[in-house]
Amino acid sequence: MYGYTPNKEEYMRRLRRIEGQVRGLQRMVEEEKYCIDILTQVSAATRALQSVALGLMEDHLGHCVTQTAAEGGDTAAAKVREASDAIARLVRS
Amino acid sequence: MYGYTPNKEEYMRRLRRIEGQVRGLQRMVEEEKYCIDILTQVSAATRALQSVALGLMEDHLGHCVTQTAAEGGDTAAAKVREASDAIARLVRS
Amino acid sequence: MYGYTPNKEEYMRRLRRIEGQVRGLQRMVEEEKYCIDILTQVSAATRALQSVALGLMEDHLGHCVTQTAAEGGDTAAAKVREASDAIARLVRS
Amino acid sequence: MYGYTPNKEEYMRRLRRIEGQVRGLQRMVEEEKYCIDILTQVSAATRALQSVALGLMEDHLGHCVTQTAAEGGDTAAAKVREASDAIARLVRS
Repeated sequence: MYGYTPNKEEYMRRLRRIEGQVRGLQRMVEEEKYCIDILTQVSAATRALQSVALGLMEDHLGHCVTQTAAEGGDTAAAKVREASDAIARLVRS
Repeated sequence: MYGYTPNKEEYMRRLRRIEGQVRGLQRMVEEEKYCIDILTQVSAATRALQSVALGLMEDHLGHCVTQTAAEGGDTAAAKVREASDAIARLVRS
Repeated sequence: MYGYTPNKEEYMRRLRRIEGQVRGLQRMVEEEKYCIDILTQVSAATRALQSVALGLMEDHLGHCVTQTAAEGGDTAAAKVREASDAIARLVRS
Repeated sequence: MYGYTPNKEEYMRRLRRIEGQVRGLQRMVEEEKYCIDILTQVSAATRALQSVALGLMEDHLGHCVTQTAAEGGDTAAAKVREASDAIARLVRS
């Protein structure tokens, strides 16, 4: 069980909505909509994905990282490093 | 006809691949995969979307903006402003 | 003469303000301020830098790229490619 | 004492380097260097600032957040929320 498990249905709902946004983008390209209008929708889908990522990260810090820290021992440092690497990937993507 | 029209099939192919990535994310959440592994895939999908956006922007600058500029007149400035607003949305998303 | 030349003083003013923000960050680290407060200021300085970049890009598109396009010839495509590479660096940083 | 305290000198050194980069940007604008070359340096300074932020965040998670979690109690959740808000500001800036 992970930090996001209690919110699983909510994440599924958001990811299905993002899938719909990406299919909408395919339709816009197919129907040759104006470039700038497509770009606006790409930005919206990107922001929605990042918002999912930020939610998953908060759940992860509040559950997996916090729990490992409470248990003490060497794994806490490894968990912090792993989370920090994931944060760096988010910031740089 | 827009700047991206000659590359339409390529963009469709990339957007279908991103749709697959988003469906893969739903599967990962459904099967309760490890948070960090999901985050890695969210970063990959985000980067793929941004890469589509950068391609569309280059096609737009090289076609719509360039053509309007070559025609001269007042619309060139409006096109530059519109493109700059789209770039700002990309940078901030 | 470049697109940003008429706005040179305004850019100088903004960059001096960012220099002040970075010196403020040094002071916060020196005086061992709370990590999260330092991070808030780093985000503010980052946004200010990106805002300068977006302004310079708009000036560049509206002057150098537009002018080259109006003149026609092969250099227009090279200018668009160069601007697109710079936009990609901004989006990915 | 905070997570970054043992690395204080290293952060000071990096922030002084970024201050130098911002002063270099002022010089480039003053001497009217080519827009794209200025933009390349803005991207470099932005990345350097984000790298400082990612380091501070890792130190914060590994010290303040971990320690609060180990102590247990209600403050752990508040610390996680505060860190998550800071991560969101980084991702969106």
